[in-house]
Amino acid sequence: MTFGKQNSSSGDKTLFTPGPLTTSQSVKQAMLRDLGSRDTVFIEAVQHIRQMLLEVAGVSKDKGFEAVIMQGSGTFGLESIIGSTMPPDGKLLVIINGAYGDRIAHIAQVLKIETTTLKYPTDVVPVAADVDRVLSEDPTITNVVVVHCETTTGIINPIEQIGQVVKRHHKVYFVDSMSAFGAVPFDFEKCNIDFLVSSANKCIEGVPGFSFAICRYDSLLAIKGWARSVSLDLLAQWQGLEANRQFRFTPPTHVLLAFEQALCELQAEGGVRGRAGRYLDNYKLLVAGMRELGFTEYLPEKLQGNIITAFHYPKHPRFEFETFYNGLNNKGFVIYPGKLSNADCFRIGNIGHLFKSDMRALLTAINETLIEMCVELQDNAVSG
Amino acid sequence: MTFGKQNSSSGDKTLFTPGPLTTSQSVKQAMLRDLGSRDTVFIEAVQHIRQMLLEVAGVSKDKGFEAVIMQGSGTFGLESIIGSTMPPDGKLLVIINGAYGDRIAHIAQVLKIETTTLKYPTDVVPVAADVDRVLSEDPTITNVVVVHCETTTGIINPIEQIGQVVKRHHKVYFVDSMSAFGAVPFDFEKCNIDFLVSSANKCIEGVPGFSFAICRYDSLLAIKGWARSVSLDLLAQWQGLEANRQFRFTPPTHVLLAFEQALCELQAEGGVRGRAGRYLDNYKLLVAGMRELGFTEYLPEKLQGNIITAFHYPKHPRFEFETFYNGLNNKGFVIYPGKLSNADCFRIGNIGHLFKSDMRALLTAINETLIEMCVELQDNAVSG
Repeated sequence: MTFGKQNSSSGDKTLFTPGPLTTSQSVKQAMLRDLGSRDTVFIEAVQHIRQMLLEVAGVSKDKGFEAVIMQGSGTFGLESIIGSTMPPDGKLLVIINGAYGDRIAHIAQVLKIETTTLKYPTDVVPVAADVDRVLSEDPTITNVVVVHCETTTGIINPIEQIGQVVKRHHKVYFVDSMSAFGAVPFDFEKCNIDFLVSSANKCIEGVPGFSFAICRYDSLLAIKGWARSVSLDLLAQWQGLEANRQFRFTPPTHVLLAFEQALCELQAEGGVRGRAGRYLDNYKLLVAGMRELGFTEYLPEKLQGNIITAFHYPKHPRFEFETFYNGLNNKGFVIYPGKLSNADCFRIGNIGHLFKSDMRALLTAINETLIEMCVELQDNAVSG
Repeated sequence: MTFGKQNSSSGDKTLFTPGPLTTSQSVKQAMLRDLGSRDTVFIEAVQHIRQMLLEVAGVSKDKGFEAVIMQGSGTFGLESIIGSTMPPDGKLLVIINGAYGDRIAHIAQVLKIETTTLKYPTDVVPVAADVDRVLSEDPTITNVVVVHCETTTGIINPIEQIGQVVKRHHKVYFVDSMSAFGAVPFDFEKCNIDFLVSSANKCIEGVPGFSFAICRYDSLLAIKGWARSVSLDLLAQWQGLEANRQFRFTPPTHVLLAFEQALCELQAEGGVRGRAGRYLDNYKLLVAGMRELGFTEYLPEKLQGNIITAFHYPKHPRFEFETFYNGLNNKGFVIYPGKLSNADCFRIGNIGHLFKSDMRALLTAINETLIEMCVELQDNAVSG
């Protein structure tokens, strides 16, 4: 039995993916309860979660921030924010350098929201000066959105620089921090974020079933009457939680209890900085080992975050991704595919209840799988 | 320790509510696994769930039916169907005799769908002849929706008679079977249902986190291009599941594993008829005991389903619902409030992992609580 398998005490495969993740056994065990959605214990858990989420964001109610939980996956949370915060005659600037930026533009389009995009290649970070230019040229833009960590590549976008430009233009700023929140330190207030969205099953290491938003109170109150949906109405959801501390519609009680436990474990690990440190250790160990095996990363090192890393397919006649993936899978290690428009890549996540020992076990398995495939990379590495 | 508490082996209170419910320990234990959303085991679980859902509905793929799973609560599923199946220039007839009918009309209104309602008091079942008349008078109506079991009161609506009228008029028929599906036998095909929605944490006794739809294949294909949302796009969700058997957006993997277990337990209990029988036993025992204690039901017996029962507040000067609720709650029994426009009521659910022994334990606790409150009902019963 590998160490990777030991970590997930159910004997499941270790997940090196962007989520669902390998979570701690204690997080899963928190789900072994049936609580009524009006039960005091449950209501207190929800309040505790909302409080801890603000702490993770480094803000507070006193400073004028609110945490709202939304049922469904991260995309539901994304759509909730887009559909609830865009004025009827608003125009959205979507800054794009990957699939998740594209998804936001697609959602806005389906919701019949006027949209303009500022698009970059997937290995380039958006430039604040470009945002400044676009906002100067088109004063009809009311809202700006950017992805924090583009899970497509693992690139970390400069949300603070962009936020300062957005503030200077007095626009509403929305950050999709799905795969970054909880493990990428940033200053919420300096970034001038009005709405941030993330999900239960990313860096906080809960199980999937809901997303959440951190909202500036004034910006939240300003969106009254704009929601294009009942289920995904961000303001109504917050008002419901404030009115009687209950959800408007059945919450995923078990998943929320797991999340409360996950937030406590994040706190115990030293909060965002502690967790960022572990993920960075995972990342460093992974990249060093992968390079030694003959792989190269898709991104230049200075753009690469600690969340997920894209590697080029090696240029070897016997390398075939399906075989590679299945070889690892059979050994108990799940990696992630990741085709990019300009390169063939796969991705390895550093997040979840994963430690250096898991990364080492993965590297050993990758080496074994390459040997099984008769793919020798050290000499005839790499890609382009 | 009461038997009620034993049932939920975590020591939690027993839930006599419309959901989240008390579930079996084995259902909860199925969540102690982290599976990747592309993992073969998970993909097979999803296929198994979709297959078993069709079996519960008494239909099959061969007969032209499809099961679609949608993240979020039941209301998300409702909105998904309304927002995806209404043509751009369509008109929806909502048949209403309770809060959940009202909610459908509200959702349609927010989605800017033209809507007309056929409204009855909460203690009256809709009449098929009325639907016939409305459809004859207004040929612009394209879709008709009714709630199967109105959880507001527990009334069971005549979905077959209404469905036959809807079919005669060649309209699309949508049934909200949220709290009935899995424990109220009906003939899906005879009802002429095009779309039915229900949720994980009702009569199938899973934990909350998603809803699902049973769809007539032809009707499903006909809705192309009509969805008013990306997350809640019913057709795209089905197409995604069919294309590679994966979800478009992160599924609640743990909750789905619990649901697969719950469906197996439903099967083991003898399917819909077996479960309906247990709930009917629960209901009969409850009502007999409540009458003996001096309570009366809100609905006439012939309209009352086996899912949830509304009882009048007794007319006693010392009866106060909050005290009654808290007294039961402190003893480990959770009932449900239920103000109706024309009567003060509370509700007791018969569904979930509950058996006759639980209903007996609840009745004992109710008796004790009345004694504590110095409320003697046997002599000076009842209400109006």
